[in-house]
Amino acid sequence: MVIRSEVLVLVLLLGSAVRSFKLDELIKYVDSHEEEYVQALREWVAVESDSSDVTKREELHRMMDMVAEKLRKIKGTVELVDIGSQQLPDGSSLALPKVVVAQFGSDTNKATVCVYGHVDVQPAKKEDGWATEPYNLTDINGNLYGRGASDNKAPVLAWIHAVEAYKALNLDLPVNVKFIIEGMEETGSNGLDAMIESKKDSFFSDVDYIIISDCGWLSKRPALTYGTRGNCYFFAEVEGPKQDLHSGVYGGTVIEPMTDLIGILDTMISPSGTILIPGIREAVAPFSDEEWKMYQDIEFDVESYRTKMGVEQLMYSNKVELLAHRWRHPTVSIHGIEGAFSAPGSKTVIPAKVIGKFSIRQVPDMDPAVVEKQVSDHLHAVFAKRKSPNKLKVTMIIGAKPWLADLKHPLYHAGKAAVKKVFDMEPDLIREGGTIPIARTFQDVTGKSIIMLPIGGFDDGLHSQNEKMSRYNYIEGTKLFIAYLQEVSQIKAT
Amino acid sequence: MVIRSEVLVLVLLLGSAVRSFKLDELIKYVDSHEEEYVQALREWVAVESDSSDVTKREELHRMMDMVAEKLRKIKGTVELVDIGSQQLPDGSSLALPKVVVAQFGSDTNKATVCVYGHVDVQPAKKEDGWATEPYNLTDINGNLYGRGASDNKAPVLAWIHAVEAYKALNLDLPVNVKFIIEGMEETGSNGLDAMIESKKDSFFSDVDYIIISDCGWLSKRPALTYGTRGNCYFFAEVEGPKQDLHSGVYGGTVIEPMTDLIGILDTMISPSGTILIPGIREAVAPFSDEEWKMYQDIEFDVESYRTKMGVEQLMYSNKVELLAHRWRHPTVSIHGIEGAFSAPGSKTVIPAKVIGKFSIRQVPDMDPAVVEKQVSDHLHAVFAKRKSPNKLKVTMIIGAKPWLADLKHPLYHAGKAAVKKVFDMEPDLIREGGTIPIARTFQDVTGKSIIMLPIGGFDDGLHSQNEKMSRYNYIEGTKLFIAYLQEVSQIKAT
Repeated sequence: MVIRSEVLVLVLLLGSAVRSFKLDELIKYVDSHEEEYVQALREWVAVESDSSDVTKREELHRMMDMVAEKLRKIKGTVELVDIGSQQLPDGSSLALPKVVVAQFGSDTNKATVCVYGHVDVQPAKKEDGWATEPYNLTDINGNLYGRGASDNKAPVLAWIHAVEAYKALNLDLPVNVKFIIEGMEETGSNGLDAMIESKKDSFFSDVDYIIISDCGWLSKRPALTYGTRGNCYFFAEVEGPKQDLHSGVYGGTVIEPMTDLIGILDTMISPSGTILIPGIREAVAPFSDEEWKMYQDIEFDVESYRTKMGVEQLMYSNKVELLAHRWRHPTVSIHGIEGAFSAPGSKTVIPAKVIGKFSIRQVPDMDPAVVEKQVSDHLHAVFAKRKSPNKLKVTMIIGAKPWLADLKHPLYHAGKAAVKKVFDMEPDLIREGGTIPIARTFQDVTGKSIIMLPIGGFDDGLHSQNEKMSRYNYIEGTKLFIAYLQEVSQIKAT
Repeated sequence: MVIRSEVLVLVLLLGSAVRSFKLDELIKYVDSHEEEYVQALREWVAVESDSSDVTKREELHRMMDMVAEKLRKIKGTVELVDIGSQQLPDGSSLALPKVVVAQFGSDTNKATVCVYGHVDVQPAKKEDGWATEPYNLTDINGNLYGRGASDNKAPVLAWIHAVEAYKALNLDLPVNVKFIIEGMEETGSNGLDAMIESKKDSFFSDVDYIIISDCGWLSKRPALTYGTRGNCYFFAEVEGPKQDLHSGVYGGTVIEPMTDLIGILDTMISPSGTILIPGIREAVAPFSDEEWKMYQDIEFDVESYRTKMGVEQLMYSNKVELLAHRWRHPTVSIHGIEGAFSAPGSKTVIPAKVIGKFSIRQVPDMDPAVVEKQVSDHLHAVFAKRKSPNKLKVTMIIGAKPWLADLKHPLYHAGKAAVKKVFDMEPDLIREGGTIPIARTFQDVTGKSIIMLPIGGFDDGLHSQNEKMSRYNYIEGTKLFIAYLQEVSQIKAT
């Protein structure tokens, strides 16, 4: 297969030195390189680039080197940017994985796109319940199982292969392409914000558009993503006695912090899931008729979503309502309580200090600073009514903003056109319920427009056991990226 | 000091072969052996007899051997009873520490008392915040700091020294004395119930009274303990989706188990600490005038109790009310939640299955089986009102009964008389807020009367950092036990 494609390249080279866009040829090239792409993914998945595990840091450094190597091989201008080190809880410091930046072309007559991706992964162990070895890419019925396959190694490779295909066929890259690939995304993109800020006037100065492919489709139908929710993460700490107390010996004589915490947490959400914190719901933009229509067109099966989660009943049984509450309405989730007894078994303790952890996924028109005040005011008000002798402290520890793109932006027209060309259908226009903070950083620091162009499958199991990428999404996704580069190049032309 | 006391023994032996009770001589003997007693405690504290740590099991076996050896040295009939093994979570089994039973005297004309105690300890590490090495008994201003010093090694030694003193002075033991010393108390007296049951008609057949000294005074004044609360420990499990979900991606589409759990837990207790579960408060026996008067006489400083705990305000500022709610009223404590995020930091999870853990310390006139139904009915009723698609399961995993003695029983008269003789004051008559399940086992299986005769200090810090036993309580406690044996012997005589 390799030989055949090399022959093809030679034949094509007989034409002209650098030729113009030929989608059919590129598609053929991708199809004939499927096994090589799978092999490349296998090599990347084999690296345990778990950014949360400090003992795996060497693997992460090796991973970044492999990314740089891959980009250099196809003649990119590649740099490994040192972004410093992180402080560990024991006081020592550990080098952060370098960020790989690369550039293909610097033709000032062309637009420049910057592709963002990451190659670090969430932790994974066979014992967690994987059916296969998580770091050994395993093909079962066309699904490629392995940690990081979908999040985010295959999409990054697909982008590299897209550029590689143009080069291999000696086709002119229709736009200049830059890459920014990091290795700390899963633990909060440590060091990246500062790097983006520092390169605002150099690396990013000529970037026109930023493309992020760190998400997935909603169904088997391709999708373009135009929004994400934000994330306001709170600690509500109630502090009482100086130290934990024996519940038998002291129970009945102190107002317990845990009782107070449960009491105030219970005032935030109604049994049916309505947010009761004053001001939150009021801030949400009204749902327009146009939006309603758009949601109606989205391919999404409520019943299979319900079955997949294994719940008897969802909060909304109507597709539009459900998607709207997943993407464009805020939600409150209580994640857990620190400081109380959480192990299996029984322990008769009155915890002295407990920290309730919850988050509000906020949506456009909601400002984290305002949400912080609303939550704090509300909790302090209900706490005051309890007349408790304990102390309450409310802190917002994350205030990641939502991101919303203008669907009328040419980036999205280009996306629709590329999907049409590769898949012969219209894409779903979707949002993400989760938060991708880097999108907002790019937007705020560089002022550039962003599109999220996912190729991950709806059932890829990111962060879960048995994460996978299908051959279909991987290969057709590569073609989509190829087509998209061409479509983006048309933006300036029109 | 050793030499002097041996001389004393020789001098006394010139009198008669076995002589009758001489409190002054016994007290002098104890005073002159203080350093030996401290040394004995030092040797016992040096053994890391942590029953919860399976890697320390050899130490525990050694500890039981030391107890047996100590009792044999003073000519007791000693047996190490094999009570089998425990199952470990990994499926393997581990030998339980043998129970030491011993007997001093079998004169059928005398009453027989059985002293219960334990020599296993709670875990302790210097890093936990100890000012001294926990297994190296350290004397600071007359306080003997060390893990297990008060709970329960010094009291067990004090009982052995009490018997030893009689023997050393060749004084007739006024009652037959039996010992039952175990090594698994801190982890639930594994295997002991079955052993007591099996020895009901042998070892326990001639026992008249059981004495437990596994508790403490309420102040600097000696106390007799006549009651403990029970403990109904509950798991309330709410189960929703098949697996944990990403709160961004899925939040807003499912009714979260955590919201349900917080909601139902919040219906059990009012902000001021009143139990709201129907039937619980109604079951509590009314507080009699006599009881009120008795509580009034107890030496207890509410303000120093408050300061010690470090709270701004207690549930009750009145001494009688406070003690009543500590001892003879039930209380609900929420200990924590299993299955939710409890680590430091932030994690954006919707936990799929959460288990709320809480306990009700119930009091006499409350039956655990009834409490179980009241709690289950209540939680299921409030859960049903929420119309949640999630599933609720309520389980009572511990149903330990309270214990209450008859204060008019001669055992308590004997206790008062002994305190009067040694301390020249009236003891406080107190209860324990916690549960000592073995008391109820003894009561139910053997049908014998029980007294709790504490010598631990009110500030000994059981289960905490810097556990200690004061020389004062240790030495005067030994004298109290000596006097008590004599007083008990008078019960039959009168």
